[in-house]
Amino acid sequence: MKYRFKITGYGRYLPPKIETSAETAKLINKSRDWIISKTGVESRRISEIDVDQMGAIAAKQAIGEKKKPDLIINASGVPKQTIPDTSIFIQKELGYDKIPCFSVHSTCLSFITGLNIAGSFFKSDTYERILIVSSDRGTRGRNFNQPESAALLGDAAAAVYLERTKEDRGLLDYCMSSFPAGSDLTEVRGGGTNLHPQDSITKDDDNLFSMKGPHIFKFTLPKVYRMIQLILKSNNYSINDIDVLVPHQASNKAIRAYTKFGQFPEEKIINIISNTGNCVAASLPLALTYANDKYNFKGDKIVFLVGTGAGLSIASAILKI
Amino acid sequence: MKYRFKITGYGRYLPPKIETSAETAKLINKSRDWIISKTGVESRRISEIDVDQMGAIAAKQAIGEKKKPDLIINASGVPKQTIPDTSIFIQKELGYDKIPCFSVHSTCLSFITGLNIAGSFFKSDTYERILIVSSDRGTRGRNFNQPESAALLGDAAAAVYLERTKEDRGLLDYCMSSFPAGSDLTEVRGGGTNLHPQDSITKDDDNLFSMKGPHIFKFTLPKVYRMIQLILKSNNYSINDIDVLVPHQASNKAIRAYTKFGQFPEEKIINIISNTGNCVAASLPLALTYANDKYNFKGDKIVFLVGTGAGLSIASAILKI
Repeated sequence: MKYRFKITGYGRYLPPKIETSAETAKLINKSRDWIISKTGVESRRISEIDVDQMGAIAAKQAIGEKKKPDLIINASGVPKQTIPDTSIFIQKELGYDKIPCFSVHSTCLSFITGLNIAGSFFKSDTYERILIVSSDRGTRGRNFNQPESAALLGDAAAAVYLERTKEDRGLLDYCMSSFPAGSDLTEVRGGGTNLHPQDSITKDDDNLFSMKGPHIFKFTLPKVYRMIQLILKSNNYSINDIDVLVPHQASNKAIRAYTKFGQFPEEKIINIISNTGNCVAASLPLALTYANDKYNFKGDKIVFLVGTGAGLSIASAILKI
Repeated sequence: MKYRFKITGYGRYLPPKIETSAETAKLINKSRDWIISKTGVESRRISEIDVDQMGAIAAKQAIGEKKKPDLIINASGVPKQTIPDTSIFIQKELGYDKIPCFSVHSTCLSFITGLNIAGSFFKSDTYERILIVSSDRGTRGRNFNQPESAALLGDAAAAVYLERTKEDRGLLDYCMSSFPAGSDLTEVRGGGTNLHPQDSITKDDDNLFSMKGPHIFKFTLPKVYRMIQLILKSNNYSINDIDVLVPHQASNKAIRAYTKFGQFPEEKIINIISNTGNCVAASLPLALTYANDKYNFKGDKIVFLVGTGAGLSIASAILKI
């Protein structure tokens, strides 16, 4: 076991407002059928509250009646604002004070990065109880001139509460690789020092999501496949040993590739994209909360988290829950 | 020793373009003397290259002829762009590929947060060689209607290369507290989902730094003082045991408070603000590179890192170098 910990709380927030693909179709000048064939998304949620409030609702559910955490990690894709980082606003919404907090950012893989950091903190005896929150409001950055990515994005938040344990469970292994050659495949070019909002050359498009879906698929497919083979092999696991595959909900095609190319049986894969869309960094922990509902993580389960993120990065983690 | 590691490389980048306070004075409709009395800044650097290139120059210096790192942490305040995170662009500038990388964000304290994460990764046997880069271009976000913060900000990057060691050196202790009651004391309200660049209600000011300097000073002074007392006491240290104090370069007044209220002798404090200004997250590692120049970290030295950051957060770390 690489790092020992227990996930003792799960929480999620799905905004009540639903936008069907028939409604989205009008915004992007396409048909409902086009959206479903391209993305697999039948409806997505549109949040009317901001990422900190969304994250805090999920976090409260994960915390339940347990003690307050001694570290809060915000592991999201897009912040509430440039400064301060979103973790402090989540802490504010939770009514806490003095808890150390920070944000980690590796776009759609932020949750896996957060798990790796949290696991290391348990092993190094630094913290006892860590809250990880992923909250994204991707629909705020939809570019209606890019119909595929605009149709994919949805809003959600999810959180997990982790506790150090002596039991033989936690993170068995973790792997991440980043490929700068793919840095322009998924972008929001604005919002920072490069194309600052005040610059006259910054266009509206620069502040919105830009995704080159087919390129990403082609770029990542062999890399993800190789990473899965390697991490399974180095842990003496076969696909049969994995109880649940929890992938980032990038697109229906990307999720189905774990069956088509990865040979994971469809029934072991959490696929929630049709009703949530791609919720950026929140997708992975959100799918994990559904895996918990479905498989009732009370006995031992081997859970494989995997995904791709802007950068372009790929990551996977094997959890024993 | 909390976490064992050696800092085996230091690097910094100070942009060649110097803006004197006589020049800044014209931009903010104040006098040079007003700037110097309020901030202590005589000149600051203005970068004409972006944060990733700045960071990569500092990183190359820190890496030198050593092996490529097995993790890159970007620990900066403001990103190059919203997505992907800046770490991937730094990796691109370094000509690397496949190295896992991510960003941590706790504004001006990002470097201390990065050190704590890196230290934990060494103790948990996760990585052997970690590069931490802090690069900020605060002058891109100056609000000339807020003369004090506009006069404070400067651009810089700094990097350290850390290696796991069995020697008795590394991070002796670390402490962080975040206080959401101070979340509006330092802000860039725009750039995220709250006041999105495309929103008609987002004003130019929202995309620029807003700092309530006197409030921050009053809010943080007793908290920082208490944290210093506690961390020294819990390590059985007195001020005399500290060889060098490396504070965040928030303002000259804030740095001098470590002598006036904190009783640290002035000659032990790294104060570089007069020629660099407040370089956001880059200030702390930049000051550390100057401490290395001044004290020649070859024998054992006890180095105390301390600072405040937007959030509002306070943090300190004791290094044995």
